Amino acid sequence: EGRAYHLGLRKGDVPKYVLMPGEVERASRIASSWDRSWRLAQRREYSSFRGVYRGVDVAVVSTGIGGPATAIAVEELLELGADTLIRVGSTGAIQDDIEVGDIIITTAAVRMDGTSYQYAPAGYPASASYEVIMALVEAAESLGVRYHLGITASTDSFYVGQGRPGYGGYMPSWSRNLVPDLRQMRVLNFEMESATLLTLANIYGFRAGAVHAVYAQRVKDEFVAHAGEENLIKVADEAVRILHEWDEV
Amino acid sequence: EGRAYHLGLRKGDVPKYVLMPGEVERASRIASSWDRSWRLAQRREYSSFRGVYRGVDVAVVSTGIGGPATAIAVEELLELGADTLIRVGSTGAIQDDIEVGDIIITTAAVRMDGTSYQYAPAGYPASASYEVIMALVEAAESLGVRYHLGITASTDSFYVGQGRPGYGGYMPSWSRNLVPDLRQMRVLNFEMESATLLTLANIYGFRAGAVHAVYAQRVKDEFVAHAGEENLIKVADEAVRILHEWDEV
Amino acid sequence: EGRAYHLGLRKGDVPKYVLMPGEVERASRIASSWDRSWRLAQRREYSSFRGVYRGVDVAVVSTGIGGPATAIAVEELLELGADTLIRVGSTGAIQDDIEVGDIIITTAAVRMDGTSYQYAPAGYPASASYEVIMALVEAAESLGVRYHLGITASTDSFYVGQGRPGYGGYMPSWSRNLVPDLRQMRVLNFEMESATLLTLANIYGFRAGAVHAVYAQRVKDEFVAHAGEENLIKVADEAVRILHEWDEV
Amino acid sequence: EGRAYHLGLRKGDVPKYVLMPGEVERASRIASSWDRSWRLAQRREYSSFRGVYRGVDVAVVSTGIGGPATAIAVEELLELGADTLIRVGSTGAIQDDIEVGDIIITTAAVRMDGTSYQYAPAGYPASASYEVIMALVEAAESLGVRYHLGITASTDSFYVGQGRPGYGGYMPSWSRNLVPDLRQMRVLNFEMESATLLTLANIYGFRAGAVHAVYAQRVKDEFVAHAGEENLIKVADEAVRILHEWDEV
Amino acid sequence: EGRAYHLGLRKGDVPKYVLMPGEVERASRIASSWDRSWRLAQRREYSSFRGVYRGVDVAVVSTGIGGPATAIAVEELLELGADTLIRVGSTGAIQDDIEVGDIIITTAAVRMDGTSYQYAPAGYPASASYEVIMALVEAAESLGVRYHLGITASTDSFYVGQGRPGYGGYMPSWSRNLVPDLRQMRVLNFEMESATLLTLANIYGFRAGAVHAVYAQRVKDEFVAHAGEENLIKVADEAVRILHEWDEV
Amino acid sequence: EGRAYHLGLRKGDVPKYVLMPGEVERASRIASSWDRSWRLAQRREYSSFRGVYRGVDVAVVSTGIGGPATAIAVEELLELGADTLIRVGSTGAIQDDIEVGDIIITTAAVRMDGTSYQYAPAGYPASASYEVIMALVEAAESLGVRYHLGITASTDSFYVGQGRPGYGGYMPSWSRNLVPDLRQMRVLNFEMESATLLTLANIYGFRAGAVHAVYAQRVKDEFVAHAGEENLIKVADEAVRILHEWDEV
Repeated sequence: EGRAYHLGLRKGDVPKYVLMPGEVERASRIASSWDRSWRLAQRREYSSFRGVYRGVDVAVVSTGIGGPATAIAVEELLELGADTLIRVGSTGAIQDDIEVGDIIITTAAVRMDGTSYQYAPAGYPASASYEVIMALVEAAESLGVRYHLGITASTDSFYVGQGRPGYGGYMPSWSRNLVPDLRQMRVLNFEMESATLLTLANIYGFRAGAVHAVYAQRVKDEFVAHAGEENLIKVADEAVRILHEWDEV
Repeated sequence: EGRAYHLGLRKGDVPKYVLMPGEVERASRIASSWDRSWRLAQRREYSSFRGVYRGVDVAVVSTGIGGPATAIAVEELLELGADTLIRVGSTGAIQDDIEVGDIIITTAAVRMDGTSYQYAPAGYPASASYEVIMALVEAAESLGVRYHLGITASTDSFYVGQGRPGYGGYMPSWSRNLVPDLRQMRVLNFEMESATLLTLANIYGFRAGAVHAVYAQRVKDEFVAHAGEENLIKVADEAVRILHEWDEV
Repeated sequence: EGRAYHLGLRKGDVPKYVLMPGEVERASRIASSWDRSWRLAQRREYSSFRGVYRGVDVAVVSTGIGGPATAIAVEELLELGADTLIRVGSTGAIQDDIEVGDIIITTAAVRMDGTSYQYAPAGYPASASYEVIMALVEAAESLGVRYHLGITASTDSFYVGQGRPGYGGYMPSWSRNLVPDLRQMRVLNFEMESATLLTLANIYGFRAGAVHAVYAQRVKDEFVAHAGEENLIKVADEAVRILHEWDEV
Repeated sequence: EGRAYHLGLRKGDVPKYVLMPGEVERASRIASSWDRSWRLAQRREYSSFRGVYRGVDVAVVSTGIGGPATAIAVEELLELGADTLIRVGSTGAIQDDIEVGDIIITTAAVRMDGTSYQYAPAGYPASASYEVIMALVEAAESLGVRYHLGITASTDSFYVGQGRPGYGGYMPSWSRNLVPDLRQMRVLNFEMESATLLTLANIYGFRAGAVHAVYAQRVKDEFVAHAGEENLIKVADEAVRILHEWDEV
Repeated sequence: EGRAYHLGLRKGDVPKYVLMPGEVERASRIASSWDRSWRLAQRREYSSFRGVYRGVDVAVVSTGIGGPATAIAVEELLELGADTLIRVGSTGAIQDDIEVGDIIITTAAVRMDGTSYQYAPAGYPASASYEVIMALVEAAESLGVRYHLGITASTDSFYVGQGRPGYGGYMPSWSRNLVPDLRQMRVLNFEMESATLLTLANIYGFRAGAVHAVYAQRVKDEFVAHAGEENLIKVADEAVRILHEWDEV
Repeated sequence: EGRAYHLGLRKGDVPKYVLMPGEVERASRIASSWDRSWRLAQRREYSSFRGVYRGVDVAVVSTGIGGPATAIAVEELLELGADTLIRVGSTGAIQDDIEVGDIIITTAAVRMDGTSYQYAPAGYPASASYEVIMALVEAAESLGVRYHLGITASTDSFYVGQGRPGYGGYMPSWSRNLVPDLRQMRVLNFEMESATLLTLANIYGFRAGAVHAVYAQRVKDEFVAHAGEENLIKVADEAVRILHEWDEV
């Protein structure tokens, strides 16, 4: 009970599979995509729904922005019995060949957050479960959705920590090399939650993955809110169904 | 406009003084404490109201949990013209003489977040504005509220990063020294947003401070939700009025 | 040509798939397991053979011990056209349920090496390719070999850096928490090359993975040289065949 | 007694309030500014005087250059019963609008020293007491002295660590970004003792602050030895008197 | 016995003095330079010979490339009773006045390896024994070999970690300052084993040193394999003889 | 001229050889030990004398306590033409077999200062010149003084940074392992200046060394002020004479 302090949920409220968008509002949109759904709770940035998608029990819990809020949701969901957590996020791409509206499936994340370092030393990997990666790939393939597979940088700052100037044009020397270096290292995109989720998954032994819709193309300076969000939700829903199918075997 | 992307606010929406609770729900409670108030927007973890408290124009914007979400709110509020930001939070105390329901006024924060490091190197101080400290002290004194003044540790993790065991009792070696060391260093309390706010305040040159209600007494293992929250809000409101008075001179 | 300086190999010498044991001697044993094989070169710790395994062109190149020697082999093999590199190593297990002679398939590695930090900042993930993981799992399953799947710690020191006392019992304070902390973080085993290989794979965009035979059980203080080596080689060979099959599709 | 080993002072020798210049010679000049004064001791870089300024008991102890020598003085003064320590230093300004001869009142310091890291981890704040800040501001205002209020960088190196070329023009890559980055972060000035003093003040719970006279204007490359020193001493003396007045209430 | 696991040597196999080339092949060339020699063992990258040079009992054990493999050799040789270890390596020079074929005698090494950090914190010195330095200098002088004396950088990466572009031209921002900064700091050369050897020597209290033949001139982009190797071996052999002579006194 | 700002010295004032005690008072005692001597200057912690010892031109300049003050002295002495700098300090021993009054000759220092990190990255060695080591050893031998040769830890804090409790018994967790770890690493003693001096010597290419008299035996908790100081000064003086003799050849 103490454990579900922030989420406002009780044991039995959530099934095995939980989708985790950052945004409160996307939690509703995900729930609406299912065959049936009902609200569980709404506290702080944690909006939760449960429902059924093509016969599979599923829940959605928004994480809010960033690792600190995400880790709280993860800790409490594990206490409640969840064991497969998939982030369903939006993102900014930093490679040329990724278009606004495309989908990015994260194989592993660069830990540029603070939270994961309180759980594990630098060097510990924020890698996605290969089963979740496979399920997301299979979902995207079967839906005919354009997707990219690779490394995601999870940062604690939307502006300066993603190489964007801060207020008044603030741009310290180190932030100028950020995007060029990550591009060279084949990082596909920036977002703010995956590294925390994936580090905790490895430490605690649950399955996790992350899939993102590209709202921003940082190289071409393009931005379309909600671009690809519909595909994103379809891919996430289908991946849950596929994982459930595999788990049944 | 791009800048207020996350908050959903426009230029002119906010006055000079903005109160910043972590919780969406506390934003409403703060707005209700004023003479008049009206909702500005509600997006993600960002709930905003504007109003008038004893003749002073004031706004409240919730930050969500953690530095990443807080920094976004700060960046966007500065673009909108705010220049005095006061965190109005809840906290866990780690010193014996602090009681549940007491108020803690932060003079400076230990940067155990990730966000502030993307803005400034280790060593840069997350110190509160002395004017905001004075206004908070004067408010607490005049209201006869029991308060403590000192250093706050801002961490990115509610469980392991505050010396609490994580899921399944996870407790790596470094987390065992955390609370004893901080206690020796005269740190009063844990929370998750002040270091980011105060670091950005020093970099960008705006005024900021932080005041907290003690919900948890970690030494005695006591917890009362909302303990002292009413006093907390009164102190914050009054501090704004006092600052406004000083600013008029 | 300058590139293959250390390995003593020329363009065309190696096919797509290369197995990479640490030990010079295991390179021969791997080559002997194929249908046909011939020596390519023998320089320093780099012993190389080419051959055919169940119709698939394959090579083996020993890396020597540690990241520095491994990175040289990787850099030069990429220049020569290889694109799927699988470490075939021996290891020490630190979890109770792993037996001497078992096989460990690495999903990602803890970067406790020095080399990977000269290529990428702390936080960049040393994760294996999910295709290589799947192929190794499928190979182990089909061969009926007992295996474990999880996180591997790659360290630069066989003694002190694996929590073993050094010469004269040298055991500095930090080395005493090493094994207990890694065990808590669900790390399965220690070895000395995977983190470097997997970090370079993500940076350079080639496929890589790692599979190990458990020679040492550190919890029970058991050690059997070459335990499981035969199974290890079979699993690695089969994984190449499976990957080749998938690649053909 | 062991405690006052370096200073050569005994219990009872010092009152509550102690001024702390870096320079031995400034200690005498400060003592001369009082109504009465007498030498306490002279050992190494520690020159100490006691006296009376406008009815207030006060002492001065020089710290020598840098955090290591300053921390020794602080540790020993606390043992002797002092509880309000104010650095009275000289400095180099790095912002355009600060003139040679101006006064800088430090609100908090960037910890670029080594000493404070042996007392507290990176992230712990080197913030001045708000009461000392207020007293210094009030003193400067009442004396009509031109002053600036803000963040001070405390470094362990007068040459390379302040962005000046070392012997033979030594200028490693990182030292080239030093001044531009600190300027962007709104740091006012460089000196070499405040971060140590202010970190220890927060750890040990005593009051501390720092005030500096601008001898060097680094942007315009101007330098006038002793510029503003007289004002500096007046402001420091007056601040002690004001603090004493407040303490009496 | 467990201790000599990797080297395949037994107590009594090695004398006090052991030469340590990186390369297996150089071990043979060194052994051939003695009056008599015989192979001890050949395992992995560890090729060992024993022999007699001008009446002095001496051994050679190759270390393989890098600190991880070197530390294993050192740990096991100490168990076997060796107490004077001299690296006999090849290197790339980064100062203008050093020619291909020259000899470099290392006074101390920059720890850019990973291994030494698992033995000792940053800041612990990788300095050579002054007796070994003296013996190497005297040997070079008496042989009339052109040599340089100074600081060596020991890195874990032959390509990116020595400022050379990696595969596909990979050159992250930090690697561009590497050579210019080290040149300014008067570092003579790059190689990959000395820092580990010299750090362990200080921790364990044995004598160690390092001497290198310059195969690559990085400033002029010249490379001649084996340049100076004959002189290198002569200097190393003579240094052992000189040390033995001094030890006899 | 700007360069000798702190020392108050001019070109021509100092010869090649300069002795550098920490303490102002020891500078006089050293000068008194020569055949003739005269004061050069006295500013802040910098007390300087010149003189002649057994026919050799020599100077002494006190450094004050700690790296920050020491680096200033070094920078300015190099500008003035000095090229052989020997620290002549007092110290606390942490190994059992070292007695109060013994002499310690430093071969290299552990960089636990802050200053050297502003000049060179972690890993750069603070090693003494082998010529200075030899001269100090020869001096101690010829004088029949009991001495120890080895690694010295140079720290920025006399209390907490040497494992002594700070004010009020302050003893954070990390300080408890400090002495046991350094003892295991064969560190002989603590002092506060050598690491800075020796790092700068390697960067700038001048000769340097350090010799200390043991005032404190930390293991046995013994302390005798000035124990061995006379021997210390004799050894330092003689070492200068010996170096001069060698330089003449």
